[in-house]
Amino acid sequence: MTVNRRFLLARRPQGDPAPQDFQLQEAAIPTPSNGSFVVRNHFASLDPAQRGWMDDAPSYMPPIALGDPIRATTVGVVHSSANDEYKIGDWVLCLTGIEEYSLVEPGHFTAKIDVSGVPSPSYFLSGMGAVGLTGYFGLLEVGQPQPGQTVLVTGAAGAVGSVVGQIAKIKGCRTIGIAGGAKKCERLIKDYGFDVAIDYRGKTMDQLAEEIGKAAPNGVNIIFENVGGNILDAGLMNLAKKARIILCGLISEYNNKEGRTGARNIWQLIVHEATMHGFLIMDYAARFHEAGLQIAQWLSEGKLRIDEHVEHGIENAYPAFMKLFSGQNEGKMILQLVD
Amino acid sequence: MTVNRRFLLARRPQGDPAPQDFQLQEAAIPTPSNGSFVVRNHFASLDPAQRGWMDDAPSYMPPIALGDPIRATTVGVVHSSANDEYKIGDWVLCLTGIEEYSLVEPGHFTAKIDVSGVPSPSYFLSGMGAVGLTGYFGLLEVGQPQPGQTVLVTGAAGAVGSVVGQIAKIKGCRTIGIAGGAKKCERLIKDYGFDVAIDYRGKTMDQLAEEIGKAAPNGVNIIFENVGGNILDAGLMNLAKKARIILCGLISEYNNKEGRTGARNIWQLIVHEATMHGFLIMDYAARFHEAGLQIAQWLSEGKLRIDEHVEHGIENAYPAFMKLFSGQNEGKMILQLVD
Repeated sequence: MTVNRRFLLARRPQGDPAPQDFQLQEAAIPTPSNGSFVVRNHFASLDPAQRGWMDDAPSYMPPIALGDPIRATTVGVVHSSANDEYKIGDWVLCLTGIEEYSLVEPGHFTAKIDVSGVPSPSYFLSGMGAVGLTGYFGLLEVGQPQPGQTVLVTGAAGAVGSVVGQIAKIKGCRTIGIAGGAKKCERLIKDYGFDVAIDYRGKTMDQLAEEIGKAAPNGVNIIFENVGGNILDAGLMNLAKKARIILCGLISEYNNKEGRTGARNIWQLIVHEATMHGFLIMDYAARFHEAGLQIAQWLSEGKLRIDEHVEHGIENAYPAFMKLFSGQNEGKMILQLVD
Repeated sequence: MTVNRRFLLARRPQGDPAPQDFQLQEAAIPTPSNGSFVVRNHFASLDPAQRGWMDDAPSYMPPIALGDPIRATTVGVVHSSANDEYKIGDWVLCLTGIEEYSLVEPGHFTAKIDVSGVPSPSYFLSGMGAVGLTGYFGLLEVGQPQPGQTVLVTGAAGAVGSVVGQIAKIKGCRTIGIAGGAKKCERLIKDYGFDVAIDYRGKTMDQLAEEIGKAAPNGVNIIFENVGGNILDAGLMNLAKKARIILCGLISEYNNKEGRTGARNIWQLIVHEATMHGFLIMDYAARFHEAGLQIAQWLSEGKLRIDEHVEHGIENAYPAFMKLFSGQNEGKMILQLVD
């Protein structure tokens, strides 16, 4: 291999990303100098948040510049190095981009990882990575679940949702999961231990609200929200007093050209003295290690199941990314760049 | 006076309340027995929240039953009594209804009040009542304002909004108020000490967002929200990191038949790790006395100005109530029943 293939942002998507918004470029493998090093990326994380970074809009990170690779968390191996701390062969977790080789400058976010104890190094992008940490801190720190409380998870068959449902069960809660289609709903019950699975497909907001109401006659104490739109509005119609809504993602909105729906039923927040928390995990960085150990323990005890949906080859980056929005992935979507 | 005139809910309003939704009934003055007493209501509070109670929808209080008087907080004098604690001539604050005489059963919310230290007993419906307490606890307890922070108040010329702006200034904050029309904006600066007044009339959400952005280039730390719709959406586009939004009211939505707008820009909550709190004051009941003393002190020191908009006579209950929604009131709307 002497070529570095890179998946670049060629223009900003309008609504649904199109193939023409991206470009697969062949470039030279970079050479490290003055403390930088080069990583051979083995796995890249594909996440709904990447869609937001493609827009030229104010966010918690700057927009991806046109001509830059799509920003992504990756797991890889140091390929060449001008940094004494990162030696050739070290496994690392980085925030770089969807490209086969990345030049990592000193001071850029990166961490050495010990891949000996996990089934695959890709776990540092799923259960041991942002997915597991998001579920862990979002549910436990923001949600403050108490045994016997009811937790509603939307996008429940997704990467974060499935982790949240399982941690809620570990903490003694009753769990209701919402997902699209009978097959996913079956997985909610069988694979992730949800008490109730609700299929949102073909249902109006009112029908969905009624179905949640039947499953939670006393209201839901916590909503872990990944989806937005009608699904969030239906959840809002079923709040218990002082309910906490963890706003983690709004995947139904990210490609919506006609404008955002947001949450039409926020008046219910007043009625129930409920709180909606915009959630990002970086605030908890100092506690990632503690959470990682707990997640690793649950994994080893068989209390937590992490599913990964792995697609192969940088040439498949576009179709793999789009599966996030059509709900075709089963588990954390990962692009494997080295087979 | 031997007749009790009562302002009843005759049918549930669809959108804007119409005169036919109400009925002015003449009934006998009730007679107390077994611990109940009768209050001659001198003042009734008119509040946007009453619109919500007219709907047959889940809320923090049951809907007003058809044929019942419009539920209201009132200030009045005990007229007759079968309760040793409430003697004829005592001034009381009650949650009864818009009617000239109310029968108050034992255990129903009521409190004796000392009207000797206030300019008018009606102050127990404004500065010393729910309006003052809502501003006090909403801003200070939920908002946690710090000196130098920026506080955005919507419906800023209204009863609650004007109190919030003034308390925020007392606490050393920079205040931006949004109101409708040049006259109200002038009052924001002159009467309530806002640093910036923004007139929302004739402006799109984007224009309003831009204007807030100019007034708060580093974002707003606290939004005290009374209005909703475009005004809330514009505020959401200007959040500082970890901003707190106190959701107190959504008056622009209460008569909206076509469906609610809610908050389209809640994605900004995620971007800024912001929190939206549905707020009701009853949680703070144990601390009402403490807050009342503080408010009374600010009033006596001239640090806090409370405006009341008093309309007269139960026959004017309907037009007085409707002024809340057209923004015609200047200060807390109160219906005086005894002149």
